[in-house]
Amino acid sequence: MPIITLEGPKITDLEKRRGLVRELTDAAVKAYGLSQEKIIVILHENSREQVGVAGELLIDRD
Amino acid sequence: MPIITLEGPKITDLEKRRGLVRELTDAAVKAYGLSQEKIIVILHENSREQVGVAGELLIDRD
Amino acid sequence: MPIITLEGPKITDLEKRRGLVRELTDAAVKAYGLSQEKIIVILHENSREQVGVAGELLIDRD
Amino acid sequence: MPIITLEGPKITDLEKRRGLVRELTDAAVKAYGLSQEKIIVILHENSREQVGVAGELLIDRD
Amino acid sequence: MPIITLEGPKITDLEKRRGLVRELTDAAVKAYGLSQEKIIVILHENSREQVGVAGELLIDRD
Amino acid sequence: MPIITLEGPKITDLEKRRGLVRELTDAAVKAYGLSQEKIIVILHENSREQVGVAGELLIDRD
Repeated sequence: MPIITLEGPKITDLEKRRGLVRELTDAAVKAYGLSQEKIIVILHENSREQVGVAGELLIDRD
Repeated sequence: MPIITLEGPKITDLEKRRGLVRELTDAAVKAYGLSQEKIIVILHENSREQVGVAGELLIDRD
Repeated sequence: MPIITLEGPKITDLEKRRGLVRELTDAAVKAYGLSQEKIIVILHENSREQVGVAGELLIDRD
Repeated sequence: MPIITLEGPKITDLEKRRGLVRELTDAAVKAYGLSQEKIIVILHENSREQVGVAGELLIDRD
Repeated sequence: MPIITLEGPKITDLEKRRGLVRELTDAAVKAYGLSQEKIIVILHENSREQVGVAGELLIDRD
Repeated sequence: MPIITLEGPKITDLEKRRGLVRELTDAAVKAYGLSQEKIIVILHENSREQVGVAGELLIDRD
């Protein structure tokens, strides 16, 4: 079961997505002592109009 | 209030979506003894580039 | 993969918990055409001090 | 850290989005006594085909 | 429907919890133009052993 | 901002928790090219009465 959900910006580089899923999974395997097959990763991608920090949308911050 | 959030692949068949919402709601009604009006279902749809199992993205698995 | 997360009050009756997990799973199996083994259910239990409806905590509503 | 995630319909008016993020953030600042910089808001937008109330998809309700 | 989920530390002062729920709800009412009755708030409380920032658990940071 | 939420069983060994938070954070730093300070990890811990796989609660499976 363990499920890792990541809320972040979109990652367009497919190799980076692959590496991220692999490393998040490895971290969970080590901590829980479970087989890789049990670990699920979900990447939720959010635009800069969907995220606010310090009371401001990201589109208004940088 | 109870809120059922489902993370899964996209369901394109509208009748299947309707059936899914109805059955998830019925299951919650029975377990909580609350009226149907209180139950909310949210279907989060994820592409095969957004989900990893066993350290691999779904696009790389089948 | 599909993952069903339920935010609701605590269910103390173990048979009701079992029934709920079984029926939520069955609903997902039917909608996705996946085997039961792929479906995960997580029951998040919230006290009446943790939930608000219409601007009021549940402890202040009934 | 505190993280406020909102599941709702899409808000197309950018000024309303800005106001929402600001007010959610202010509410958290007051309750936690933390600086604005610590508060993150995520707006998850759901279509009317993705949400069910009382066992029906929103597209079938009004 | 809109659902506001807050991940934060525990708020022990009940008046602060009430104010937080009221203000989060008011912010959503204004942004969506929906009645108060439609807005749900869930406060998920996390201990300092459950949260990490910058790679460290909060118990190790201050 | 990126936020990593992990739904899993409780990890009682504090060193394992520390390692998990560090490695999840490192994976996100590498994928997003952001500083460590921006990455938040939340560990949601679920008992075996709160999780179902294949239609059965974990307490009924092993």
